[in-house]
Amino acid sequence: RIKASGLKLRFCTNETQATREKFVQKLQGFGFDISVDEVTAPAPAACRVLRERSLRPHLLVHDDVMPEFAEIDRTNPNCVVIGDAADNFTYANLNEAFRVLIGLQNPVLISLGRGRYYKETDGLKLDVGAYMKALEYACDVQAEIVGKPAKMFFESALAELGVQPQQAIMIGDDIVNDVGGAQQCGMRAVQVRTGKYRPSDENHPQVKPDAYVDNLAEAVDLILQQL
Amino acid sequence: RIKASGLKLRFCTNETQATREKFVQKLQGFGFDISVDEVTAPAPAACRVLRERSLRPHLLVHDDVMPEFAEIDRTNPNCVVIGDAADNFTYANLNEAFRVLIGLQNPVLISLGRGRYYKETDGLKLDVGAYMKALEYACDVQAEIVGKPAKMFFESALAELGVQPQQAIMIGDDIVNDVGGAQQCGMRAVQVRTGKYRPSDENHPQVKPDAYVDNLAEAVDLILQQL
Repeated sequence: RIKASGLKLRFCTNETQATREKFVQKLQGFGFDISVDEVTAPAPAACRVLRERSLRPHLLVHDDVMPEFAEIDRTNPNCVVIGDAADNFTYANLNEAFRVLIGLQNPVLISLGRGRYYKETDGLKLDVGAYMKALEYACDVQAEIVGKPAKMFFESALAELGVQPQQAIMIGDDIVNDVGGAQQCGMRAVQVRTGKYRPSDENHPQVKPDAYVDNLAEAVDLILQQL
Repeated sequence: RIKASGLKLRFCTNETQATREKFVQKLQGFGFDISVDEVTAPAPAACRVLRERSLRPHLLVHDDVMPEFAEIDRTNPNCVVIGDAADNFTYANLNEAFRVLIGLQNPVLISLGRGRYYKETDGLKLDVGAYMKALEYACDVQAEIVGKPAKMFFESALAELGVQPQQAIMIGDDIVNDVGGAQQCGMRAVQVRTGKYRPSDENHPQVKPDAYVDNLAEAVDLILQQL
């Protein structure tokens, strides 16, 4: 319905355990009309940063997101990129990433997000943010975060759409990463009361959405009504 | 020579990869006159804290330090104790410690030190401080550190000696953990120019030792001269 109305649409995800291809296949399976070139995700955003600054990464990421970095030069690394590596977060791999980083004259750490933890069927798991903090502390550096809520991430999505922030509206379930991030970039933002949403979000000390909706369909109603 | 002079002596270490027994055997091998009951170390200091506060730990520590916790009740844990677990820092073990901590109504994280990294024959390794930061961030808690430079650690050593801080002098190679920690506790401190010592320590912005010596023997000379 958004597409049929003539509005431009883009999907912004912090998914770093899979390529955009896999992510899109999953959503297509749920019936969404979505293609890879409509998705803004941390790994391709990181690739853009790497190319712009001639950075050659040592990668500590999930096996399934590796293909996103296929065309990036990784010889003689001059930075470390960390994602939610899951089972690749071994003691040996963390020490290796640490040694690369501490050995650089100008250590650059790029993190595909800053999540604390997430839930899987077999329980809670530490997310990339925790391991990012470990490397930050050990090397006395501050990571550069690509992915929501980084301003640069939303700016990429806007550039890809070819619109100004005040012309765009973000719909998301995460009060800080989706709503707060988009608003800091000058966009309006609607929180959906599904997924990560918690009733306590409505009393969040810093972030106040421009509107609430009970689900995605209601967000579409709201937007199309105001055209 | 210190012992023969009648002065009281105590050995303070941040070693958490071995029991005091192993540590003492190593030093005896180098010719030191030392016994287990002369050693103040983080693991027994943690055990004292656990007993005093009726805490039952989930342990994420090195296999070789486990015997120090042999008499501690670990059923139904209400805190997490983290040490330099080395190969025990697996993805699964970190997630398990995290789940215990995040599941507590009043999360208590006790860390056997806060080191960033150390060097072994096969290269640099992340130390306990890095993993402590990961858990701190994920659970939004602040760890309680036992071991140097924690004030409580030096106070334990003084209590074990039965002397006041102003009656004691610390000798160590680490400008922050040994010298700074002891001074904050009201002791005087001598830095030895061996081991971890770096010439840049002499321009440290916060910590200034009461004296420098070139090695341990010279520290003994200095102390005995002033008796």
